[in-house]
Amino acid sequence: MANAIRALAMDAVQTANSGHPGMPMGLADVATVLFEDFVHVDPADPSWPDRDRFVLSNGHGSMLLYAVHHLLGYSDMTLDQLKHFRQLGAKTAGHPEYGHALGIETTTGPLGQGITNAVGFALAERMLNARFGDDLVDHYTYAICGDGCLMEGISHEAIDLAGHLKLNKLIVLFDDNGISIDGKTSLSTSTDQVARFKASGWNAVSIDGHDAAAVRKALTEAKRSDKPTMIACRTIIGYGSPKLAGSEKSHGAPLGGDEITATRKALGWTSEAFVLPDEVVSRWRAISTKNAERRAEWEKRHDASPRRAEFDAAVSTALPADFAATMAAYREKLSQEQPKLATRKSSEATLEVINALTELTIGGSADLTHSVFTVTKGMTSVQADNYGGRYIHYGIREHAMAAVMNGLALHGGFIPYGGTFLVFSDYMRGAMRLSALMGLRVIYVLTHDSIGLGEDGPTHQPIEHLAMLRATPNLNVFRPADAIETAEAWEIALETTNRPTVLSLSRQNLPTVRAGDVAENRSRKGAYVLREAQGERAVTLIATGSEVEVALNAAEALKAEGIAAAVVSAPCLDIFAEQDAAYRQQVLGTAPRIAIEAAIGFGWDRWIGDNGRFIGMHGFGASAPAPQLYEKFGITSQAVVAAAKELTGR
Amino acid sequence: MANAIRALAMDAVQTANSGHPGMPMGLADVATVLFEDFVHVDPADPSWPDRDRFVLSNGHGSMLLYAVHHLLGYSDMTLDQLKHFRQLGAKTAGHPEYGHALGIETTTGPLGQGITNAVGFALAERMLNARFGDDLVDHYTYAICGDGCLMEGISHEAIDLAGHLKLNKLIVLFDDNGISIDGKTSLSTSTDQVARFKASGWNAVSIDGHDAAAVRKALTEAKRSDKPTMIACRTIIGYGSPKLAGSEKSHGAPLGGDEITATRKALGWTSEAFVLPDEVVSRWRAISTKNAERRAEWEKRHDASPRRAEFDAAVSTALPADFAATMAAYREKLSQEQPKLATRKSSEATLEVINALTELTIGGSADLTHSVFTVTKGMTSVQADNYGGRYIHYGIREHAMAAVMNGLALHGGFIPYGGTFLVFSDYMRGAMRLSALMGLRVIYVLTHDSIGLGEDGPTHQPIEHLAMLRATPNLNVFRPADAIETAEAWEIALETTNRPTVLSLSRQNLPTVRAGDVAENRSRKGAYVLREAQGERAVTLIATGSEVEVALNAAEALKAEGIAAAVVSAPCLDIFAEQDAAYRQQVLGTAPRIAIEAAIGFGWDRWIGDNGRFIGMHGFGASAPAPQLYEKFGITSQAVVAAAKELTGR
Repeated sequence: MANAIRALAMDAVQTANSGHPGMPMGLADVATVLFEDFVHVDPADPSWPDRDRFVLSNGHGSMLLYAVHHLLGYSDMTLDQLKHFRQLGAKTAGHPEYGHALGIETTTGPLGQGITNAVGFALAERMLNARFGDDLVDHYTYAICGDGCLMEGISHEAIDLAGHLKLNKLIVLFDDNGISIDGKTSLSTSTDQVARFKASGWNAVSIDGHDAAAVRKALTEAKRSDKPTMIACRTIIGYGSPKLAGSEKSHGAPLGGDEITATRKALGWTSEAFVLPDEVVSRWRAISTKNAERRAEWEKRHDASPRRAEFDAAVSTALPADFAATMAAYREKLSQEQPKLATRKSSEATLEVINALTELTIGGSADLTHSVFTVTKGMTSVQADNYGGRYIHYGIREHAMAAVMNGLALHGGFIPYGGTFLVFSDYMRGAMRLSALMGLRVIYVLTHDSIGLGEDGPTHQPIEHLAMLRATPNLNVFRPADAIETAEAWEIALETTNRPTVLSLSRQNLPTVRAGDVAENRSRKGAYVLREAQGERAVTLIATGSEVEVALNAAEALKAEGIAAAVVSAPCLDIFAEQDAAYRQQVLGTAPRIAIEAAIGFGWDRWIGDNGRFIGMHGFGASAPAPQLYEKFGITSQAVVAAAKELTGR
Repeated sequence: MANAIRALAMDAVQTANSGHPGMPMGLADVATVLFEDFVHVDPADPSWPDRDRFVLSNGHGSMLLYAVHHLLGYSDMTLDQLKHFRQLGAKTAGHPEYGHALGIETTTGPLGQGITNAVGFALAERMLNARFGDDLVDHYTYAICGDGCLMEGISHEAIDLAGHLKLNKLIVLFDDNGISIDGKTSLSTSTDQVARFKASGWNAVSIDGHDAAAVRKALTEAKRSDKPTMIACRTIIGYGSPKLAGSEKSHGAPLGGDEITATRKALGWTSEAFVLPDEVVSRWRAISTKNAERRAEWEKRHDASPRRAEFDAAVSTALPADFAATMAAYREKLSQEQPKLATRKSSEATLEVINALTELTIGGSADLTHSVFTVTKGMTSVQADNYGGRYIHYGIREHAMAAVMNGLALHGGFIPYGGTFLVFSDYMRGAMRLSALMGLRVIYVLTHDSIGLGEDGPTHQPIEHLAMLRATPNLNVFRPADAIETAEAWEIALETTNRPTVLSLSRQNLPTVRAGDVAENRSRKGAYVLREAQGERAVTLIATGSEVEVALNAAEALKAEGIAAAVVSAPCLDIFAEQDAAYRQQVLGTAPRIAIEAAIGFGWDRWIGDNGRFIGMHGFGASAPAPQLYEKFGITSQAVVAAAKELTGR
């Protein structure tokens, strides 16, 4: 059974003339035991909510996953797909891509992400179990990872958090082959991984990964542990290849025709490429038959459950029916009250409304709870003795926060949001990109979003981050100007099921700028005319977030000088870019344009055009009280007025 | 002596009404012993090459550093500066900023960076020692860090690497106060830090951080260890404050006037705010007197050393006199040979020239040596038994690679470069930003720079990364088109002492596109007309890197159709943006413009203008052979020709 994985892996890589045969060949014995006796998934229903989750964290070994899925009988993972490994349009992408083929639980490749997603999966399982009990929710999360995953920093964050939360249904199998791309891992590491995991509260053992009985025993014991378990499986990379086994040369390149022939011989595998003996296939398929029975038992319990409808609604993560009406009423309330609040505080107030309305939302922050205002009344901390909590103290671990949120969103049952300072999006870029690539509803609450944070200085002041995030495909970046736009941004973020959202929020207080009727969520078009010019527009001021106030003040000053200025608020340029040309033209107008944003101008030329002006940052910030910084860097209504006069020749 | 630190910290934070008093107050006892008997620095010569390096990794405790520097007698750290803590123009920024005041070895604040810089410092010391011996190079690196630094993933990368390299002159003091911003650290971590460090080959102990004798003993033993040492100092945050000691409330806010009065009383500190008893000051200054003697001894050895000139040249990291001539000759050679090479291979060939010319360069990669081609002939691996090596196997640790390179560059004596795939700049953004903020000569070799990498698919294909890096202030991003531009980019990167450089390099082969005279380094202006139109320009094609070939092919096809197209190669848009308007206008011309780059178009509007076109990516990539991907995403000369015809109305 294991040799079937080896043969498919080496043949597919050879046919593609590209890929990584060494890992699937080395880990085939472990994977066979794992899927034969432990991972309960049913190819007939890949989205069975109580299936075990399997994560291939070292995603370059994708052929292991594809081979196993073919052998288990996933309908879309045909031999033809394996023959077209890494080709255009095939389901067998170079690395496993979520959504490309059935049963792929998460996109992996960037190392360390998978094991951290797995922490999210395992946590989601415990949290959903706390809500619905063992009858409906009782599954394990298995992750395979390599040396690379365990060298990456994010692995520390994942391990530390999982150990703290005692996620005992998380089992990590470490492909301990002693080889990385450059050669022996002893070139760059001396860490005792077993000791390291134990230090973070894990159960950890080291076994021979080619001894099926040892693998079975370790997995059986892991399932009984009251801690998460790491099993270091000592393996030989490229196992079976006479010349390349144990060498980094089998890692990321085809073995070559002659070596494949020699490997077939050494393994006693007589079938031709992509041909599988019937007996082997039937043994693999028997696994799925057994798992289908397990699923049928669960379906019975599910059908009989008095909480079936509630459970199904949770798993679908559908918003409550009265969501839109509640948000509209809340906008109306804000419009009456006209609060002057930092948008981070407006976000908290909005969350009070949302979190009272639905239990799907799971909050958290990277140890900045009372700066980013992500906790609301009655939310208790998720801890090992309180999986029923709704607030995750992620610790000072931004990268893990993002990757765990990806896992929570992928698992189903929850809508995760998490907060830190905008500047620390730097620390979680790797996982944020995967939120976007996978199209997950993960909401990033990123506060202290400009030099407006003041004294903490340039290390804490985001300058290029809005550009970096706006440049990222399939990610909505909102920078709301006031409490109403903040509520609108939250509403859109929650409704957007196929994209992550960033909320870029101010530390400093901002007045309510939205005037007039608030029945409509105007942020839905990304940008809109907040204040039309009186008479023909002489100039259009476009601003976001805290700088909308600056634009409004400038427009008022310009009016006094007889210059008709319109003010456009642009809470989400990503969405605005997706509007039709007519709407964009209507908003932008034909008069000269000035953009105001306390960030780098990179990317703004699209909106201001050849003759426009940008008022914002041109380098890093400084440490001082915020009002002085706005003066120092010239982001003032006076500067806008001066630019408008210059542009309009008055 | 310790209470002087406490008083200055609480008074400065109170005066600023902003800052972090808890850490300096809790760690004052540790810091006093550390500076009194261990850290050998001389305020009279803050850049003494053989000084010990001190890094405050938990940079929010900046008042500890400023207080100590004032007490030791650094000439610029006056009482007046302390009174203007966190104010505009003061040297006492919210977080320690490299270059703002004497003796600040590195910029800290983003957690985990400092301890990783410290690994770079400690490694630089051993490497410089291997070259020049104990007489000239024999110093320690001390770092203080907090819970946050040790929760961040980068700490794992740093610890793993330092343990592996047996950097026994690195001593980390962990402020083990059990408090983070959200409250007790037990909210989010259960890791046994001593066991964790031991698992990675460190010497590690836990002591009472308020027991001076224990601190002294631990530091004395650490200096004798053959491993790096971590001393967990159990402290009480906000020590001395009757109401706030031991609470997160003392972490990031002023204590308040009444509490400061109560704290003074509790500590028996009777002086007014910013007033220091003469006896205390003289005891602190005595430390500097003692250290000045130590430096004088070193100066004697230095003066007497037969290798003095060589050492001074190394420390100044000045390029050899024949650098420019060698690079010019190399360009000439390439011009003769017209190689067709991937720019990652061209980079390797250039490095062969550079690394033979100077020993200042220290190579490395994050376990992708034979993909990014960063090693050259004769470079041996830096290991615990070979500090004389010139190539660092950073392991699968991009973030640490970048932060260690920052440390190597800050230490002096070396010009570090390190390689990984461009997409994994995501993993090291935090440290890359600090390279830029500090203005360090660190060179990032980032290959596989587009969908041109092919089969590895979207997780490995950078799309938004060029935009993200170009948006970063004070960072030069080069994307050379051929071997000659690659050599030019390396030349400029090495010459640029006040800015980091990114070299964005192709996986796929590219022809030599530079024609004619190569005496001048044309990349020095960022962009230039590579091929002028015959006759009046009908259209200008602007491209970078691998797409310059596409532009040239399109220009040739357009010529056949009677459309005169100029081709601009833009290896570095950051530098081009800094040229005068006349030069930029000359290059860009007045004809319609089309930009071609296999990346997101974000940021290109500046160069193509209102009526321009962008041919590139509009979302994530896919897994397939590279030529098929270029077709799929429409980045072809045919697409350029079609756009040019549309623009010119032909």
